[in-house]
Amino acid sequence: MKKVSIIGAGMTKFGERWDKSLKELVVEAGIKALVDSNLSGNEIEAVYGGTMAAGRLVGQEHVGALLADAMGLNPLPSIRVEAACASGGMALREAYMAIASGYHDVVVVGGVEKMTDVSTGDATIALAGAGDVEWEYFSGATFPAVYALLAKKHMAEFGTTEEQMAQVAVKNHENGSKNEYAQYQNKITLEQVMKSKPIAEPLKILDCSPITDGAAALVLASSDIARKYSDTPIEISGVGMASDTLPLHDRASLIELNATKVAAEKAYRQAGVTPKEINFAEVHDCFTIAELLAVEDLGFFPKGKGGPATQEGETALNSKISINTSGGLKACGHPVGATGVKQAVEATWQLRGEGKGRQVDNAEIGLTHNVGGSGATAIVHIMKRVN
Amino acid sequence: MKKVSIIGAGMTKFGERWDKSLKELVVEAGIKALVDSNLSGNEIEAVYGGTMAAGRLVGQEHVGALLADAMGLNPLPSIRVEAACASGGMALREAYMAIASGYHDVVVVGGVEKMTDVSTGDATIALAGAGDVEWEYFSGATFPAVYALLAKKHMAEFGTTEEQMAQVAVKNHENGSKNEYAQYQNKITLEQVMKSKPIAEPLKILDCSPITDGAAALVLASSDIARKYSDTPIEISGVGMASDTLPLHDRASLIELNATKVAAEKAYRQAGVTPKEINFAEVHDCFTIAELLAVEDLGFFPKGKGGPATQEGETALNSKISINTSGGLKACGHPVGATGVKQAVEATWQLRGEGKGRQVDNAEIGLTHNVGGSGATAIVHIMKRVN
Repeated sequence: MKKVSIIGAGMTKFGERWDKSLKELVVEAGIKALVDSNLSGNEIEAVYGGTMAAGRLVGQEHVGALLADAMGLNPLPSIRVEAACASGGMALREAYMAIASGYHDVVVVGGVEKMTDVSTGDATIALAGAGDVEWEYFSGATFPAVYALLAKKHMAEFGTTEEQMAQVAVKNHENGSKNEYAQYQNKITLEQVMKSKPIAEPLKILDCSPITDGAAALVLASSDIARKYSDTPIEISGVGMASDTLPLHDRASLIELNATKVAAEKAYRQAGVTPKEINFAEVHDCFTIAELLAVEDLGFFPKGKGGPATQEGETALNSKISINTSGGLKACGHPVGATGVKQAVEATWQLRGEGKGRQVDNAEIGLTHNVGGSGATAIVHIMKRVN
Repeated sequence: MKKVSIIGAGMTKFGERWDKSLKELVVEAGIKALVDSNLSGNEIEAVYGGTMAAGRLVGQEHVGALLADAMGLNPLPSIRVEAACASGGMALREAYMAIASGYHDVVVVGGVEKMTDVSTGDATIALAGAGDVEWEYFSGATFPAVYALLAKKHMAEFGTTEEQMAQVAVKNHENGSKNEYAQYQNKITLEQVMKSKPIAEPLKILDCSPITDGAAALVLASSDIARKYSDTPIEISGVGMASDTLPLHDRASLIELNATKVAAEKAYRQAGVTPKEINFAEVHDCFTIAELLAVEDLGFFPKGKGGPATQEGETALNSKISINTSGGLKACGHPVGATGVKQAVEATWQLRGEGKGRQVDNAEIGLTHNVGGSGATAIVHIMKRVN
C-alpha cells in the first residue's frame, strides 16, 4: 500500500451560520483547502464527503455529487459516506484507502453539516437516528440520555465526579478561546458548568456539545508526490475503524467504548507507535463523559483514571498530553458530519506548527478520534510530521 | 491493484414488505449471500452498505454500523455510502476498491431501502433529495417531472415516441414475470401503458418504477482466493463512476447523461472490452425514458436510436442485447439503495447460468448501470465469467 499525506487543510468558522447554505459552507472550506494545497485543481481525481443527516436537516441527499458540483469538480467521482457523528472521519478513511490502494493520487475530503435550519427539537430527532431508532429512540432515549447512562455507570464504577466531567468543558472552552474558528470563544468556570441547566442527569447543558453549522476540508495525496505541493506534508501513518452494537443494552461493557479500543489498536499497530508517543489528540467529546471514556480507551490513562487526570490538569494544553486543542466538540462546535474532518484539520495545523495561541510544543505525532452515535462506530487516525 | 470477484449473492423478494423492518431485510439478504459464498463468517473483514434515505424514510441513520450489528459482524468496520438511487452501486465500487487496494480480502456489500413505511407523498419528497433541493424541488420539480423534461427533449430531438418508451415497460414486465424476486410479475400490454394514468406528461404511471422495500447483498473476495469458496467466481473487470450537476439547467446537454458516458468509458477501458462484447446489461430504468438514454449512452445503440431499437425488440431477452433481464427497476421494483446491488446479483446469476426462465444464452460478459438522481452520479460495473 502507498503512503498517504495531507497537503491542504481548511475550514469555515463553526457556529450558527444562517448566512450560508450547506453548499456554500462546503465551497468555503473546500476552496480554503485547495488554495492551501497549492494545487491547480486539475490534479484532483475524486471527492469523499461526510455528512450525517442532510436529508433530515435540509432535505438534501446525494451530497457527494452536490459537493463535486458546488466545487466545480464534475465529472469526478464523488462519494458521500455516513456514520452518524463519525461521518467526517469515515470520509477521511475512505479517501485514505483510495490513495493507499494506488487507485487515486490526489483526493479532496470534505465534511459538512447544516443543523440550524431546523428547530433544536427537530435536530435532536435527526441526531437520534445515530442510535438504534427501534430500541432506543422509540423508548424516548435521545443522545443526552444515552450518554447520561454511560456517565452514571462510570461514576458508580470508578467514583468519577460531576466536577471531573465539568473540568473537561472548562478546559475545552479555555482552548476554544484561542481558536478563531470555534463556535464558543468564551472561557467558562467550573461553577458555571455545575450550576448550568440539567439536561439528562448528571449531564448539564455545559456538559453537552452544541448544535452547529460548519464544514471542513482536506486535500490528500500519495506521499511520493506530496512534496511537489507542500513543504510540510503531514503523513497519515495509522488508520483504525471498528463498529459495535447501536443500542447500549447489547454491549458487553458500559465502562468503555469497545469500538474505540479496537480502532485504536489497529491504528497504533499500523503506525508503530504507543499511546505514550502521542503528543496531542483531538477526541470525540460530544458530552464531557465521552472525553473521559476516550482518554482511557485510547490508552492515555488507565481505565477509570480519566476523571482524576483531567481534574489534575494532565489533559490541558502542553501538559502530559494536550487533548482537544481546537476546543473539541464542546467549544469548537459539532456540525456532526464536519467534526471528523475538522479534527484532522486541527492536527495538520498543530503538526505544521500553525497552532497559533494554542500550539502544542514539539508536536510530532497527533491522533484524531471520531465516534458515531454512542460508540457504534469509532475511527482513529494517527498523523505525524515528516522531517 | 488486485483483481476482485463476486463469490456470493442474495436478495429478498422486492415489494411492499410490511412484514419486515429495514434491519430484517438486511439480515435476510445478507445471510443468503453468506450461505451462497460458502464462507464460515470469520473471513469477512469489512461491510459496505448503500442506502439513500433511511433517515427520512424510517428515521435511522448510522446504517453501516446497523448492518454490521444486525448481521452479527461487530466489530468489523462498516461503511455506509449514499449516492441517491446509485447508493447500491457506490457500495459495490467502494467494496471493490477496498479489496483492489490490498487492504481487505473478503468484504460484504449490502444495499437496502425501506420505503413503504411512509406515505407515497412523503417518499416522493424524500426522493426529491436526490436532485438539487434548492433549485429543483423548491420550484416544485419532483423526479417524474425532471425525467419528463428529459423525455420531451428526446422526443423533440430524435422523434422518440411515447409508444417506444412504453415498450420498455412492456419488455421489462415480460422479463419480470420470470423473476420470483420481482415486485410485479404480471405482464402488461402496450395499450395498458399508453392508457395508464398520466403522471408528468409524457410519462404515465406505467412508465415509472414503483416505491419498493427490499435488500440485496454480495460477498466479494480477492480473485486469488475466490476459488477457495466458489466454483464459479464472477470477476469484476471494470469499474467506472462519474458525477454531473444535480440540476438539469446546469447541464451541457439534455439528450444524454454525461455521467453515464464518462463512467462507461472508464469501465470499458479498464475491462478492455467494447459495448459490442456485452451480452446483457442491467440498466437504470427508473423511468422508461431512462432506459432509452442508458442504452444509447452506454454505446449499445447510436444516440437517438434507443427508441426504435426497443420497438424492434433488439433489447428483449436473447435478442441483440438483453436489457434488464431481472425486470429492471420498472418490474423488479426500485428500493433505491438496494437497486445497484440487485443489478449485480442478477448479473452474477446470469453469468453463472442461474438465470432460470430468463437465462441469457452464452452469457460471458455483463454490465450494470446505476444512476443517482437525474444523472448527477452514474456507476458502471463490467463483470465476466472466469473460465
